Order: sequence, then structure tokens, then C-alpha cells
Amino acid sequence: MLALGIDPGTAICGYGLVELRRSTLKAVDYGAIETSPQLTAAKRLTIIHQELDRLIKKYQPDVVGVEQLFFSKNVRTAMAVGQARGVILLAIDQNNIALAEYTPLQVKQSVVGYGKATKEQVIFMTQRLLNLPCKPSPDDVADALAIAICTTHSAGNNLVSWGTKL
Amino acid sequence: MLALGIDPGTAICGYGLVELRRSTLKAVDYGAIETSPQLTAAKRLTIIHQELDRLIKKYQPDVVGVEQLFFSKNVRTAMAVGQARGVILLAIDQNNIALAEYTPLQVKQSVVGYGKATKEQVIFMTQRLLNLPCKPSPDDVADALAIAICTTHSAGNNLVSWGTKL
Repeated sequence: MLALGIDPGTAICGYGLVELRRSTLKAVDYGAIETSPQLTAAKRLTIIHQELDRLIKKYQPDVVGVEQLFFSKNVRTAMAVGQARGVILLAIDQNNIALAEYTPLQVKQSVVGYGKATKEQVIFMTQRLLNLPCKPSPDDVADALAIAICTTHSAGNNLVSWGTKL
Repeated sequence: MLALGIDPGTAICGYGLVELRRSTLKAVDYGAIETSPQLTAAKRLTIIHQELDRLIKKYQPDVVGVEQLFFSKNVRTAMAVGQARGVILLAIDQNNIALAEYTPLQVKQSVVGYGKATKEQVIFMTQRLLNLPCKPSPDDVADALAIAICTTHSAGNNLVSWGTKL
């Protein structure tokens, strides 16, 4: 089973593809879709949508896991992250791929076994579980890989909620 | 000049097409893209994107005006509105249409001449300026028409900022 994890953002949108085969996890690909602040918000969203669509078509994941946030620094930030999430959910639906959404607490619980784990603990465990040669960076990429790990775990245990209603 | 005004939302997304010809305003079309709460958020966003794309291709507006919000009841609401805005900005950019964004204060200032006007005053002036036979409803449609009026005004006075950076 192949899971794509996404950490939504307008400037940097992290992605990580993790394969679960015979209880072994493997990082297939990971990186970040970056967009220049010189571009309009609309153009940045178009790039994120295009790149994600390309990744989904290339790897055909069984499920995409996206981080779900209920807290934010302020409304402006929430609106910007929401806009990125909008085009991400659109690309997933347009490609008929199953969607799973997780809160940061669920991701930490799944990767570290403790919902209040620090960012460093999550990165450490992500690197270890995927047997990566070095720490995944920036944080957005590490987060995306952690979300992908969480997605493979939860899907295996049938704990995934397929799509949410807003 | 033909302006399309959009009031973004996941459940109801209001739209209004207003034509400005020889200083006379005319409502060309208006209504709402409504999506069922029974659908997943991703499916609702796909419908909003599809319908807006269809409207843009049908009417080929010169410019699309979208409401910009910096305040919200809470982060969850801001995130949901952000998601709808995301697929709306995407459809506009994919069709290479100019984008203008306005705060509710700017819309009120433009339609009523007073930034702190009430919702009723905005609806009254919108109906009057467009010479509509009855009050536009629901509020999302009235708001979209008011945004379209504001867009024709500001574009005429070169006050439009073409795209914003987030």
C-alpha cells in the first residue's frame, strides 16, 4: 500500500510517499512544492495544484493523507493554509483517490506513540522508521513523511475516515 | 466591461455578473453554487471549481472580484472559507482572468458610500443600482452582486489591485 502525505502550505507544501510492504515502511519519494512570494496567491495555488496532480498521476497512491488544523496563529494564516488545502483536496478528488485527514495529535500518536511529542521526536522517529540516511528537511517535508506513515498505519487498522464534511 | 463578483463559501457560493456600459449598470446573471453537506469537503470543492469554471467560460468576464476576509468567527470557519477561496482563485487563474480582491469595507464604501453600512443598506443599494425587480437573495447572492458593482467601479477608476500576495 502506497500513501502520499501532504503538509499544506502556500510557500512550501511538503509531500512524502511511503510504501508499506510486509510491515516494512519505505520512503519512495519526498520533497516540497515551493512557490515564490513574488507570484500572486492565485498563481501559487495553480502551481501547487499542477504539481500535486502530477505527483498523484505519477505514483498513483492508494490513499492521500492531509494534515487537518483547527488552530492557527491568526485568521489570515488559517485562510492562506485553507486556500492551499482547497486546491490539494480538489486535486485528490479530481483523481478519485481516497482521502484521509489527521490532526497533528493523531500524527504524533501514530509516529512517536505519544500525542504531545516534540517536533524533534517526530523527525527522529520518521527518519528511523523510514531508515533515511539523514534528517528529512525542511520541517514541511518531515511533517509530510510523518503524515504518510500515519496514513499507512491507520489505513492498515481501518482507522481512516474517508473524507470529512465541512 | 463585465465583472463577475464572488462571495466565497462551501455551502453557498454566491455569484453575480454585472455589466457597466455608458455609466449604466446591468445585472447579467446571478445566483448561487450550492453544495450538499452530505458530500465530502473535497467533492464540494470540486463542484464549486467546476461550476465557476463553467460560468467564466460562458460569460468571459473582464475581471473577477472576490471578497477578502481578515476576520472570522473562528479558525475552523476561516479554514473552510479559505478552501473555497482556493479553488475559486485557481479557476480564475486557470482561465487567465484578472482578479481583484476587496474587503467588506471597500465593498460597502463603493456601493453605499459608507464603509460601516448595514447589510440591509447594501442590499437596498444593490437592488436600486441594478434596477432589480426584487431583493436579491440569499445574502450570498446580494453580496456577490455588491462585489461585482464594486469591481466595475474600482476597475473604471483604476483602483483595482490585480491579484494579491499571500
